[in-house]
Amino acid sequence: MRNIMVHLAFDGTRYHGWQVQANAVTVQQRFQDAVEKVFGSRLDVTGCSRTDAGVHAYDYVCNFHTGASIECAAVMRALNASLPFDIAVTSCREVPEMFHSRYFASGKEYVYKICDAPYRNPFTRFYSFYYPRRLDCEQLNTAAQGFCGRHDFAAFRSSGAASRHRPEEPEGETVRTIFESAVTRDGDMVEFRVRGDGFLYNMVRIMAGTLLFVAQGKIKCGDIEKVIEYGDRRRAGATAPAHGLYLNRVFYDTEKLKNL
Amino acid sequence: MRNIMVHLAFDGTRYHGWQVQANAVTVQQRFQDAVEKVFGSRLDVTGCSRTDAGVHAYDYVCNFHTGASIECAAVMRALNASLPFDIAVTSCREVPEMFHSRYFASGKEYVYKICDAPYRNPFTRFYSFYYPRRLDCEQLNTAAQGFCGRHDFAAFRSSGAASRHRPEEPEGETVRTIFESAVTRDGDMVEFRVRGDGFLYNMVRIMAGTLLFVAQGKIKCGDIEKVIEYGDRRRAGATAPAHGLYLNRVFYDTEKLKNL
Repeated sequence: MRNIMVHLAFDGTRYHGWQVQANAVTVQQRFQDAVEKVFGSRLDVTGCSRTDAGVHAYDYVCNFHTGASIECAAVMRALNASLPFDIAVTSCREVPEMFHSRYFASGKEYVYKICDAPYRNPFTRFYSFYYPRRLDCEQLNTAAQGFCGRHDFAAFRSSGAASRHRPEEPEGETVRTIFESAVTRDGDMVEFRVRGDGFLYNMVRIMAGTLLFVAQGKIKCGDIEKVIEYGDRRRAGATAPAHGLYLNRVFYDTEKLKNL
Repeated sequence: MRNIMVHLAFDGTRYHGWQVQANAVTVQQRFQDAVEKVFGSRLDVTGCSRTDAGVHAYDYVCNFHTGASIECAAVMRALNASLPFDIAVTSCREVPEMFHSRYFASGKEYVYKICDAPYRNPFTRFYSFYYPRRLDCEQLNTAAQGFCGRHDFAAFRSSGAASRHRPEEPEGETVRTIFESAVTRDGDMVEFRVRGDGFLYNMVRIMAGTLLFVAQGKIKCGDIEKVIEYGDRRRAGATAPAHGLYLNRVFYDTEKLKNL
């Protein structure tokens, strides 16, 4: 069997996240519909992670197995012709049969976008969270450094979550490593970018909400590490809205993939 | 009476252009609805130009007269609270009573956006025209220089148009001056930017369509001036779709405004 790895970009506005659900339209469902059209049968598609309803992706990774010999460039064209316009295949290639988009992911990068123009920008209303007061980007960037390192992020997880992301991890493991965390500005758009080895349920949205608490003076700029240490969800900020969040990149250990 | 000048940004996707129409929702109608809510009566609002259905604006200018003493910052806030999220007031100020957004405009700048990624970008699908083959930006920029100068643009006008934009101009005048015309690339987004003293009905969309004809080899790169000279609509390119077009800026002669 061939194993096909697909990179997707999707506008999450109309979808209830990636994962197939009863009674709700999801990206996985629409993608599997397209795969079924192209390959003639309904194949199981494995995604790199669940995503919340309304969350976007610049680079989501999934994979599926097929015995069909159709070449990857043709698979990409055919899938794009079958997918709705808010989901696109950006690349497609064959990978070792054992490759699994979720288990082999060594890290992910998310971006949370906040627009702080003096008015709601009509062009970014579905693609960023609107915050009506000017943010101090330097202050937020300093605060965001507090997320870096290996910590127990129990305070940055919504309850009711399936946090397990790798089979070898104990149920409920909440320790994660954040490699990079930064806040930058481009005009009226403030971007919080965070890269780590894994993220708990709603973790990036709670991080973004905690930075907004810093902006509002509800949490001190240097206190992020304390909020992490306390381990109490109620001491972190509110969960920022889904439509500001993007899965920006998924990382795979290329050495590990070579040895498959 | 006070004369209030308002700058708007709008996502034109849902609208049949600026101008009020029977049986179609327009930006002017929605804006007049908001003005009515804020000022308590339906006021006449003058726009800087008609725009086609689906065309966007980064900076549209309009004005209206009122006897109300409410200050401009409060007008902006109140209008934005009443407008739908795809129309925003970006600034608001008082101007001389005689000022007229259309008659006093000395020039306009439009941008036409073409996305030529190998796939349809889900995030720009309403905000650019998708062209599935890579464009040679340098070639198009060379071609675009042919639009510069004072020409009779009869070949670049859709029929059935009300081309008159100033009262002193004879009916059907098709001579316009283009001050600047350039094609640039930012990643997968190709932008055609054109600034002139005025534009005929569909003129920028036909210019963009003519550049696409150049890309397709249907018109030679250096032949734009010939196409203008022939004056025959059938020798120019197709009218490019509305959703790639933005009114980017309206220019006013500040000296002229001072003397009002």
